[in-house]
Amino acid sequence: MCEANAYVIKNGEEEIYLEAVDILRPEGKNIYLRNIFGEQKVFRGKIKEMSLLNHKILLEEEKE
Amino acid sequence: MCEANAYVIKNGEEEIYLEAVDILRPEGKNIYLRNIFGEQKVFRGKIKEMSLLNHKILLEEEKE
Repeated sequence: MCEANAYVIKNGEEEIYLEAVDILRPEGKNIYLRNIFGEQKVFRGKIKEMSLLNHKILLEEEKE
Repeated sequence: MCEANAYVIKNGEEEIYLEAVDILRPEGKNIYLRNIFGEQKVFRGKIKEMSLLNHKILLEEEKE
């Protein structure tokens, strides 16, 4: 399966945000994510980088 | 392999933009993409939606 894990960078460390992500959809200042188990989350921030071969999505919180 | 194809929506139709994408990185108003063959492109616009299980990235051109 080709899902990827989404991580948030906090204080320079990668922290898991949602595992096994299938769908990503930017919506204004948020990112809607849904994983293969049907779990949905809305992240306040943006995509920093993704590597599909590494199954990795890096998210960055919005700077206030 | 878990790469995905990137498509641009033009006049309601999906047109292939880059095949076998590995890396995506939003950079201001652009999206940097690199595929598994090392080909690199910079798209002026944003990510509309991705489904990793469907190996599909939909890109949307910036509205002027």
